Amino acid sequence: MHRSFMPGLMVAAGLATLLGSTPAAAQFAKPEDAIKYRKAGMTMMATHFGRVAAMANGRVPFDAKAAADNAELATMLSKLPFAGFVDGSDKGDTKAEPKIWSEMDKFRAAASKMQDEMAKVNAAAKTGNIDAIKAAVGGTGQACKACHDSYRKE
Amino acid sequence: MHRSFMPGLMVAAGLATLLGSTPAAAQFAKPEDAIKYRKAGMTMMATHFGRVAAMANGRVPFDAKAAADNAELATMLSKLPFAGFVDGSDKGDTKAEPKIWSEMDKFRAAASKMQDEMAKVNAAAKTGNIDAIKAAVGGTGQACKACHDSYRKE
Repeated sequence: MHRSFMPGLMVAAGLATLLGSTPAAAQFAKPEDAIKYRKAGMTMMATHFGRVAAMANGRVPFDAKAAADNAELATMLSKLPFAGFVDGSDKGDTKAEPKIWSEMDKFRAAASKMQDEMAKVNAAAKTGNIDAIKAAVGGTGQACKACHDSYRKE
Repeated sequence: MHRSFMPGLMVAAGLATLLGSTPAAAQFAKPEDAIKYRKAGMTMMATHFGRVAAMANGRVPFDAKAAADNAELATMLSKLPFAGFVDGSDKGDTKAEPKIWSEMDKFRAAASKMQDEMAKVNAAAKTGNIDAIKAAVGGTGQACKACHDSYRKE
């Protein structure tokens, strides 16, 4: 329903869907490359989401344009890291729980939940309504935490 | 001239320009956060550019859609890492040469050159012409190398 406002997002979402369907072997030469990639994607996403969250939580003064720009980037970036959870990348320099690979459908659903919540942050940020942004940031934070609680080691 | 083909790119380019103009203090709480962010951005960019380069170099069979999608992502991502070269982030877990901060204009110009070359890869990938892609990948690789030779420690 917000398509007219989100050309970048729509393009990125389409790309990520396609990239996610490419055979893993064609995407990463080595498992450690996949691990490095997904960590980098999480860092990028967390940085831009964190800027919106800081405004939502009142730690930083609200700037509607900065919120919208960072939410847009966070939403695009939210599509990328999960391509890095390829077969064979359960070992190495990673905090990923091995059960990700034994219940991949459930893991993908948890990732998808986060992506949906992040898209709500993006939609809210485009309205400039701080209360809507706060609600969406809260939902996204819960989705991040739920997935980390289940699938990331301490 | 390629605006009609690149809504995502244009949005991302606009965002990055704006984000780059935000005061550094508002962007990263600590210098090490900025270092981690710029490294993550380089990793993401290099991954997606690398997939196009692998096709251009014949290491991977040419797939026009995969080339176009990865070039689009690489171009969007090419705008992001340089926001991480903030004051005070010349020390720490980084290979960045200190002279970046004493000749920031020159460094920014070298980054901009790479971004322009990457945009040519994107434009070429949208045509699906492998010879055009090869030429643009070559130009981008040279821009990467020139900047690394000057500004990245061994």
